[in-house]
Amino acid sequence: MKRVFNFSPGPSMLPNVVMQKVQQDLLDWEGSGMSVMEISHRSDEFLALAHLAEENLIKLLNIPNDYAVLFLHGGASLQYSAIPLNLGKNNKADYIITGHWGQKSEREARKFTKTQIAVDTMAELRLPTQQELNLDPKADYVHFAHNETILGLEFNYVPNTQAVPLVADMSSNILSRPIDISKYSVIYAGAQKNISISGLGLVIAHRALIGKQKPNTPGLLSWKEMLDNECMLNTPSTFSWYMAGEVFKWLIAQGGLANMQKINEQKARLIYDFIDSNDFYHNPIEVNSRSVMNVAFTLADESLNNKFLEQAKEQGLTNLKGHALFGGMRASIYNAMPIEGVQALVNFMKSFAKKV
Amino acid sequence: MKRVFNFSPGPSMLPNVVMQKVQQDLLDWEGSGMSVMEISHRSDEFLALAHLAEENLIKLLNIPNDYAVLFLHGGASLQYSAIPLNLGKNNKADYIITGHWGQKSEREARKFTKTQIAVDTMAELRLPTQQELNLDPKADYVHFAHNETILGLEFNYVPNTQAVPLVADMSSNILSRPIDISKYSVIYAGAQKNISISGLGLVIAHRALIGKQKPNTPGLLSWKEMLDNECMLNTPSTFSWYMAGEVFKWLIAQGGLANMQKINEQKARLIYDFIDSNDFYHNPIEVNSRSVMNVAFTLADESLNNKFLEQAKEQGLTNLKGHALFGGMRASIYNAMPIEGVQALVNFMKSFAKKV
Repeated sequence: MKRVFNFSPGPSMLPNVVMQKVQQDLLDWEGSGMSVMEISHRSDEFLALAHLAEENLIKLLNIPNDYAVLFLHGGASLQYSAIPLNLGKNNKADYIITGHWGQKSEREARKFTKTQIAVDTMAELRLPTQQELNLDPKADYVHFAHNETILGLEFNYVPNTQAVPLVADMSSNILSRPIDISKYSVIYAGAQKNISISGLGLVIAHRALIGKQKPNTPGLLSWKEMLDNECMLNTPSTFSWYMAGEVFKWLIAQGGLANMQKINEQKARLIYDFIDSNDFYHNPIEVNSRSVMNVAFTLADESLNNKFLEQAKEQGLTNLKGHALFGGMRASIYNAMPIEGVQALVNFMKSFAKKV
Repeated sequence: MKRVFNFSPGPSMLPNVVMQKVQQDLLDWEGSGMSVMEISHRSDEFLALAHLAEENLIKLLNIPNDYAVLFLHGGASLQYSAIPLNLGKNNKADYIITGHWGQKSEREARKFTKTQIAVDTMAELRLPTQQELNLDPKADYVHFAHNETILGLEFNYVPNTQAVPLVADMSSNILSRPIDISKYSVIYAGAQKNISISGLGLVIAHRALIGKQKPNTPGLLSWKEMLDNECMLNTPSTFSWYMAGEVFKWLIAQGGLANMQKINEQKARLIYDFIDSNDFYHNPIEVNSRSVMNVAFTLADESLNNKFLEQAKEQGLTNLKGHALFGGMRASIYNAMPIEGVQALVNFMKSFAKKV
């Protein structure tokens, strides 16, 4: 069999070398005669694996000591509830809306706090400027989705929220480039794009913010309880944690995030430049707001959509169908997508446009 | 390499044939050129897999139509919070305590409801009788852990709670034998023992009870929101769900739960009979309260514990160390442990006792 180039928005492609190692070790992990899936999370072997994953993540993202790193259940969505439960002292919070995911997190947060829309540029297919942010200095936090996957819209600056904690959903662009952690109070992400398989949620939170949860915060949503129990208040998603560790090792072997940034920008440039060079394909997002991770595009003649998808699949280019809310196409080009995959897609797009 | 007999209490041994199939299909699932880990939960292929897993579970447990089946995040522990949030109308609930897990769930529930201890026989190492249950007819529900893993204590009857909904934590004995679902209102379980890998929680709940959640119930904890969204309010733990489906197929191929019950009782008899036949090993649990899934035992001379564990490991019998709260040994013999494994353990225990 031949592995395809899988442009799925998530769960998404994992690095081939990681997948091969995982397959090889699946029945007999480190000579134990057991799968890593079958060992206790409290065994010395698993604890060593878990700590190494955390250390490597700290190294990759250059996370300062005053931040805690939590490996949690439930992906990013569980944090939509956890954030207001952990940070909700004044019972009001600002939400910056640039797309579907920001909107979803704001709606869930309403159960626990009074949400305020600091700005909403979703319909305009662009980022807001710093000046447009209508921020409440008494808000418990300001929330934004760093990258919106559906249309492919990504922040190219970090909002300045003064003394108010800034909370970023980085589910779809974490680890795609170096970031300055100190500019954020909380960063969180679901694992199924740039970290691991689904089911795992990652939280990087300034320690000063941990311990202020509301009394009725479920244990698995309480950052304090999870931190105090080293993320083993219950059995964690051990296999997802293990896979995350393998992905982190792979990222280090690739030269870390500075190098990933170069590769990712090269990949994005390749496809955006091609889209912008012709009238057959179109990307709807304001140029400076475009995502490096998710590239949405439409065909001038939408009746060709199915033909495009079928022929792409025949070429080993899969899962290019856009989100139902937008239609068209979307190429998600996370860390695991090699530049060869993007080149193959652009070549196919060229030849498809010529033939029809 | 040789696969060992792994007596881990959870995450625990998975059926060898399932593991081999998973390994074989890991990089190229059903000829897709992708891993099942890498495909969207909303793809036709994953939805078919998810529905088949649900259907097979319904078949295995003979689940009536008026019960909903939910595949959730977070294992059993997230349900410790979810149960009072979903069922907490009168704001009081009865808890039957026979061990550590019943106790843990009661402590978490206190955040959301007034908990009442219907009986606590934990220190007596035995089950309570029906007559001993001090039940409040106005309670929202009665909760019990069907099998306590630490000392190996398992209910051999279903508590009669009259009109009050009965909620059972079956994390460690679900699928070990047929049960009469209609005697319960809610059954829930973490996946990492008899279902799949960790990170997945299963809930089987009478539909009449769904939709009564408190307004501040996090979305992923709301049975109503999860049911309305076919358990895809967010990205589920897709790989755990897939593994569960593979385990369910295997159970059907084994002849279903009636046959599993025979095998499991045979395994348990083999080891308990041997322990009771000599003074070298001892099981502390009242005979009629003993678990078919977890067999705890001590050595008459505790100074031999490490020697026992080392020599067992050399024989390919791993993870026999008891829980820190109890000490001694524990053999967890879930569905995936073949009778050959239990026979090998008993043979080793015999020869160890003779030699020292």
